[in-house]
Amino acid sequence: MSIDNTAMFTDRYELTMVSAALRDGTARRRCTFEVFARRLPDGRRYGVVAGTGRLIEALAGFRFGEEQLRSLADVVDDATLDWLRSYRFSGDIDGYREGELFFPGSPILSVRGTFADAVVLETLALSILNHDSAIASAAARMVTAAGSRPIIEMGSRRTHESAAVACARAAFIAGMASTSNLEATRRYGVPGAGTSAHSFTLAHVGLGGGTGDGERAAFAAQIAALGVGTTLLVDTYDITRGVATAVEVAGTGLGGVRIDSGDLGVLARQVRAQLDDLGAVNTRIVVSGDLDEYAIAALRAEPVDAYGVGTQLVTGSGAPTAGMVYKLVEVDGVGVAKRSSHKESRGGAKSASRAARDTGTIVEEIIHPAGSPVPHTDGLTTTALQIPLVRGGEPVDDLPSITDSREHLASALVSLPWEGLSLSSGEPAVPTRFALP
Amino acid sequence: MSIDNTAMFTDRYELTMVSAALRDGTARRRCTFEVFARRLPDGRRYGVVAGTGRLIEALAGFRFGEEQLRSLADVVDDATLDWLRSYRFSGDIDGYREGELFFPGSPILSVRGTFADAVVLETLALSILNHDSAIASAAARMVTAAGSRPIIEMGSRRTHESAAVACARAAFIAGMASTSNLEATRRYGVPGAGTSAHSFTLAHVGLGGGTGDGERAAFAAQIAALGVGTTLLVDTYDITRGVATAVEVAGTGLGGVRIDSGDLGVLARQVRAQLDDLGAVNTRIVVSGDLDEYAIAALRAEPVDAYGVGTQLVTGSGAPTAGMVYKLVEVDGVGVAKRSSHKESRGGAKSASRAARDTGTIVEEIIHPAGSPVPHTDGLTTTALQIPLVRGGEPVDDLPSITDSREHLASALVSLPWEGLSLSSGEPAVPTRFALP
Repeated sequence: MSIDNTAMFTDRYELTMVSAALRDGTARRRCTFEVFARRLPDGRRYGVVAGTGRLIEALAGFRFGEEQLRSLADVVDDATLDWLRSYRFSGDIDGYREGELFFPGSPILSVRGTFADAVVLETLALSILNHDSAIASAAARMVTAAGSRPIIEMGSRRTHESAAVACARAAFIAGMASTSNLEATRRYGVPGAGTSAHSFTLAHVGLGGGTGDGERAAFAAQIAALGVGTTLLVDTYDITRGVATAVEVAGTGLGGVRIDSGDLGVLARQVRAQLDDLGAVNTRIVVSGDLDEYAIAALRAEPVDAYGVGTQLVTGSGAPTAGMVYKLVEVDGVGVAKRSSHKESRGGAKSASRAARDTGTIVEEIIHPAGSPVPHTDGLTTTALQIPLVRGGEPVDDLPSITDSREHLASALVSLPWEGLSLSSGEPAVPTRFALP
Repeated sequence: MSIDNTAMFTDRYELTMVSAALRDGTARRRCTFEVFARRLPDGRRYGVVAGTGRLIEALAGFRFGEEQLRSLADVVDDATLDWLRSYRFSGDIDGYREGELFFPGSPILSVRGTFADAVVLETLALSILNHDSAIASAAARMVTAAGSRPIIEMGSRRTHESAAVACARAAFIAGMASTSNLEATRRYGVPGAGTSAHSFTLAHVGLGGGTGDGERAAFAAQIAALGVGTTLLVDTYDITRGVATAVEVAGTGLGGVRIDSGDLGVLARQVRAQLDDLGAVNTRIVVSGDLDEYAIAALRAEPVDAYGVGTQLVTGSGAPTAGMVYKLVEVDGVGVAKRSSHKESRGGAKSASRAARDTGTIVEEIIHPAGSPVPHTDGLTTTALQIPLVRGGEPVDDLPSITDSREHLASALVSLPWEGLSLSSGEPAVPTRFALP
């Protein structure tokens, strides 16, 4: 299977439901499914939508070819296999744009089509949106904590190899500066970054004289290959000696040093002083090592120039999935909803708007029936949140690029009430009003 | 890029290191890299190795073709591009087999080759092993908690679409019975499972008379398509009525009912009593809804026949990555190790054995220099833990299948001291002895 074929990233029950629905005609009923999160992860003030662009790309590959159909021969009957063979999503999708904020109940995606057309997209849509939004939501908090300092995303090794590529993309939308992941650079144009690991220094053991540990030889080799603008990893052995050697080898024009272990605040101060004493006043300090948004914030007063984040980014900093669901809300114009305990949904297709003061600060999110006017908001400006994404199965023209989405998020975060950007636990930054019948 | 090409699932710095190492000849030094976890996730008693088989498959696709090389033209110099063009891993890999237990420091993988040959595999090896082992480690606890009751893996929608396939594979190795993920069934032969969602019932609104909610029509359609052996989802509206309708429509031969919300223990008892009263004494009860190992264990005394797990499985039940690192430990026969604070490594290539009593119960794991005899253990039987995986760049014959790995893990878990299978937090189930110089 080529990565371009996405049809099998699907739960078996989507197809058995289609099979049953084809028999009794339900398959052809006009339906609206909505994607939303019932709540935000504990204490989070906002979520960030990501993955929409990947989902729209993945739609084009959602085709059941003969290879896929052979493997489904004992899952569904021949009539269903025939239906799958000719399946192309032909409905419409509206949704929150990538880089948009979301809150509990926000109708992030609305998928309209026949029951069968829309139900088979459930697993793929949720996989992409739940993963990418979880990463972007965590990343945005880290970017906020870092202020104007850039963050390098370097978490590929801590997550599934394909998920890593999506993580780098989501992190860029959320405002991170660059990624270590080569495929994310190739596929999405996310700026690349990265220099060397401890193994590179260790591989030089016994070379280059000096202490025999080869650190000097390693630095010389890296500079020969990458120039003095490179960032040298100075904490393989003794950091103070590492910094001294780095400046000896590179000169005071050394681009940067990276510290990957120990008390990063203390070490950053110590290394800054040492670099300044040596005359390397423009040499940047990059720190890494299990940083999350809180550790980044704690380093705000330290002389750090850039952060590298890995594990905490790709695991969503405690919230590795966004908790979004894909629910049928309307059938042939009738609102439907599950009624059993604890997991109630609100029936009927919905639209959403955000109401803001003249200053731009958001006051509330309003969810109202699709097609009905936005409820009155006294003296506030309302902006519709859903945009058209797919019409008649085809992506609309001029979908936002990841750079557009990144800029959109940066503006959206500025529009939150001030407490919304707090890292501390609390309620969602703005209330959601359900103006529904 | 086809999914078969895995070369770009790589951190940029692996290639810049190669570039620098090619210039000064370090690239050709004979090296051993080892994969290990410094610690287990908080309170976990053991880890489960998974991903080894996927890694060996991915090695075959680790090739830099012209498409990949074009995107690397501004990352490395021409000499490095040439080296990458002809890159084939030609070294040896030994490692713990899939389904093997691991503990802090266990040398899960040993990669031997030139520095350049081995360093470029770092990101891919860690991505696969960290992800798959995290999932298998969580899954094994859930399987233990479920005892003889089967678990259906249904977490695809809560994780990246490709990661979902690997999750299903890892969960099967860990003892789960089946998966909802179609691609995992197609690619790896993991048994498939799945029937219907609430949306299927809701899609029947207004059909089939009765209460007008269409539940009866939905059940009839599912049975028509899948037979009475299917599992009906009974909690869309009122569970008691759902169960009654299910048995009316299917008869007492109904395969199963699924409950996906509410207090699962209370509902399971109530539904069991109702089913028995209706004569459906063999109808199974499947429960799902944010189950983790603790929730599964809490249901042990309830009349539950099978569990569906999703979110908690694919997020590693609180530990979404296994924390493994890929460290250079030996260069041209000399042991090397990072010396800076908190992240020390033990230099030198290592082997590992497990010492057990006659009863089979493991007493300790012993890590000793590779090539040296296993240290003496009084009256205990020792078993070597690493097996050959790759020789001269090629997978060895007769690598274990996922079914072999699943059986191996089942035996290995039985060999733990009894407290090792406890779900409560504690120390690793067996101590590790580092019999190193």
